[in-house]
Amino acid sequence: MPVPGPGYSITVRVEAPPSASAAGDLTSAIGRVGGVITAFDVVESHADRVVVDITCNAVSENHARDITTALESLPGVHVRKISDRTFLIHLGGKIEVSAKVALKNRDDLSRAYTPGVARICQAIAENPDDARRLTIKRNTVAVVTDGSAVLGLGNLGPAAALPVMEGKAALFKKFAGVDAWPVCLDSQDTEEIIRAVELIAPVYGGINLEDIAAPRCFEIEARLRDKLDIPVFHDDQHGTAIVVVGALRNALRVVGKDIADCKIVVCGVGAAGSAIIRLLLNKGPGDILAVDVDGIVHPERGGLDPNLAWIAEHTNVERRSGSLHEALVGADVFVGVSAPNLFGADQVATMASDAVVFALANPDPEVDPLDAQKHAAVVATGRSDYPNQINNVLAFPGVFRGLLDAQARGITDAMLLAAANAIADVVDGDRLNASFIVPSVFDSAVAPAVADAVRRAAVDEA
Amino acid sequence: MPVPGPGYSITVRVEAPPSASAAGDLTSAIGRVGGVITAFDVVESHADRVVVDITCNAVSENHARDITTALESLPGVHVRKISDRTFLIHLGGKIEVSAKVALKNRDDLSRAYTPGVARICQAIAENPDDARRLTIKRNTVAVVTDGSAVLGLGNLGPAAALPVMEGKAALFKKFAGVDAWPVCLDSQDTEEIIRAVELIAPVYGGINLEDIAAPRCFEIEARLRDKLDIPVFHDDQHGTAIVVVGALRNALRVVGKDIADCKIVVCGVGAAGSAIIRLLLNKGPGDILAVDVDGIVHPERGGLDPNLAWIAEHTNVERRSGSLHEALVGADVFVGVSAPNLFGADQVATMASDAVVFALANPDPEVDPLDAQKHAAVVATGRSDYPNQINNVLAFPGVFRGLLDAQARGITDAMLLAAANAIADVVDGDRLNASFIVPSVFDSAVAPAVADAVRRAAVDEA
Repeated sequence: MPVPGPGYSITVRVEAPPSASAAGDLTSAIGRVGGVITAFDVVESHADRVVVDITCNAVSENHARDITTALESLPGVHVRKISDRTFLIHLGGKIEVSAKVALKNRDDLSRAYTPGVARICQAIAENPDDARRLTIKRNTVAVVTDGSAVLGLGNLGPAAALPVMEGKAALFKKFAGVDAWPVCLDSQDTEEIIRAVELIAPVYGGINLEDIAAPRCFEIEARLRDKLDIPVFHDDQHGTAIVVVGALRNALRVVGKDIADCKIVVCGVGAAGSAIIRLLLNKGPGDILAVDVDGIVHPERGGLDPNLAWIAEHTNVERRSGSLHEALVGADVFVGVSAPNLFGADQVATMASDAVVFALANPDPEVDPLDAQKHAAVVATGRSDYPNQINNVLAFPGVFRGLLDAQARGITDAMLLAAANAIADVVDGDRLNASFIVPSVFDSAVAPAVADAVRRAAVDEA
Repeated sequence: MPVPGPGYSITVRVEAPPSASAAGDLTSAIGRVGGVITAFDVVESHADRVVVDITCNAVSENHARDITTALESLPGVHVRKISDRTFLIHLGGKIEVSAKVALKNRDDLSRAYTPGVARICQAIAENPDDARRLTIKRNTVAVVTDGSAVLGLGNLGPAAALPVMEGKAALFKKFAGVDAWPVCLDSQDTEEIIRAVELIAPVYGGINLEDIAAPRCFEIEARLRDKLDIPVFHDDQHGTAIVVVGALRNALRVVGKDIADCKIVVCGVGAAGSAIIRLLLNKGPGDILAVDVDGIVHPERGGLDPNLAWIAEHTNVERRSGSLHEALVGADVFVGVSAPNLFGADQVATMASDAVVFALANPDPEVDPLDAQKHAAVVATGRSDYPNQINNVLAFPGVFRGLLDAQARGITDAMLLAAANAIADVVDGDRLNASFIVPSVFDSAVAPAVADAVRRAAVDEA
């Protein structure tokens, strides 16, 4: 059963009798149905009643309803109002646009707007590169989606994707001082998406593609990289790949293996899996087996799309075929970006000794991490409630900070690898162990280290 | 000769001898070449020299060079550095994106981002209108341009237009708390612009078109109004029309005329002129004569585009033809949104008694306002250095505040007229006179009054 978490946190305002046992009765009623209380505040106190706000974490809407029912069933208790804290913080959206210049008087207006601004416009018209200096292009990234693959929820469309893009923009600012803006496109046509991004590009110093379904995302990214003179980064691909490659470097340090000797199984060959494979190939692995719902990818398998055909050609040295379970036998590393509960402890036992298991399907991993730990030496997931969380937040803010600082016109695997190494290196030798292969998402050293590494790599290639 | 203004303000750092007369020598040198000193700061003082920052307003780049040459020519004086304050405040752009939610710890992250945000996405997917409540769509406007008519500078393209759009976004926030975002499109094709705006629309609660050339702007606006379920407003058209109609209402109060008896000449039939005519027609004017470079617009004139043909049909009751100067004879009101120096005091003398002249061409009006004042009862311009500045800043912030507050799905002439009346009514009877027909752009009563009027009109029509 899922654990109550702060993503579903409610505040219930209840009226109760002023008895000595009231607080205890309320908290035990919530405890009995599995709610986790995080705050208890008395709002009003009268001779005949008290009013309290009880904040607690729940699992789901039904669970929240169980909690209020449990409270209502107590004698003399009346639930006045239930607030969902997650909805509350979303009212009106999570980001805003602020002016960085004073507009207090006419002189301010003359400089920031007409007539002074005309000279800035003319300077840029004469030298278009001045836009990277004299406008928000210097520090601004578009977070572009078509809403076709929102989180793990699927094709919800552009409006429903907006809260994710706003959250991403907030993270960009918080972790790396990057101004990011949501671009939620009302089309899922590859050509229309490409053209729309081209048309809006003048305002931005970089494009972060987000939650766009595979295989459409590959063509969109490749074509935009070709057309634009600013970096194009698909976070679901490259963000995940950077963190996986960084974490794997540290995991292999923990088990004392060289990647050149490792057989790596990558399960899931969508956006994330494909990018992980492509980035790992730069590191010269022993071999990679790509596995999807039809089993191991190999060149003779029918119906391969261009992406899978490329992967079949560049992986699977022994041209093996078979199931995921067969692929796991003797493997040193498993990286899953696919679906929940695909195997158990028995399959992990068939892997090589000191196996590394990254089970990143969210919220439910490919293998229960507690089962995986029985036989693997290092286990990582995408979840915050287990050790070793593989989280893109470690990568994207610093990557764009570095790209913007370098005024980069494109992005290369060398920059992605520099970012991966930087994340790995934040965990110094003293702290590195099987339960600590990646830094915390709140480690303030991460984004600057990634930014610096990416900036250097970008300057080197310029 | 133009007057030095704060739109071109430079700070010159000079090294000078420590003599008692140094300050006087420096300031008189600048005064001799026409610079206007606004600040004089000693930065360093040594036995053998002083270093001072002199800030002064100039007219142009050549004038700024004259100023530094004049300083360099003084004995012992050396110019170290020249900073242009307008360029300085533009470094890195004028707006930024800020988070409105806390992201300090994992609980914050769980609510603003995954996993909590998933519930917000699902709520919007089930009920798309929730996007107007739970996302930035609630308070956000796109400022859209193709860069084809930037200020009075012409077709500079999208990158060079960005500083204007950023300034506009800053004004939106400052005057009405609206979050506005620049969308500078890298295409000047009508169909592409329309489609791009449709594609980006899910994020926005309104569209403000800006600096798009006529006649393309008419079709873009009309088609987008038809396609989108959010208001579409072309500031160069409707913003200008609102302020002109509001100002004209007060001007006619000053001269004691009824618009139903007035003959109005509108010179310039581009974006602004056409919108002014269309909005004025709602007020039942005596007659309107539209005039462009080919003279008075009338139905028999050849080569009228659809916009001009419509105007020809709905104005010019007497089907007159002729020149601007002929049109002015006997006219009660002149509204110019065209070109500099088209007529002089002699032509104003041919107008009806108690004439009203709005000469809005920028920076140089259709008629010198001092000449116009010789014969007209009320004169207004677009400039900040004469009384009665007709400035769109009086309209657009409040208009969108009202539209967003009403969650309006469109915009009508009734809303534009409500805005015009609200601006006019801010100037109460006690203050109203020939030199004060519109409030100051810094009058904090304007935007709330406009917002309230527009919101009421929008709710009435919903």
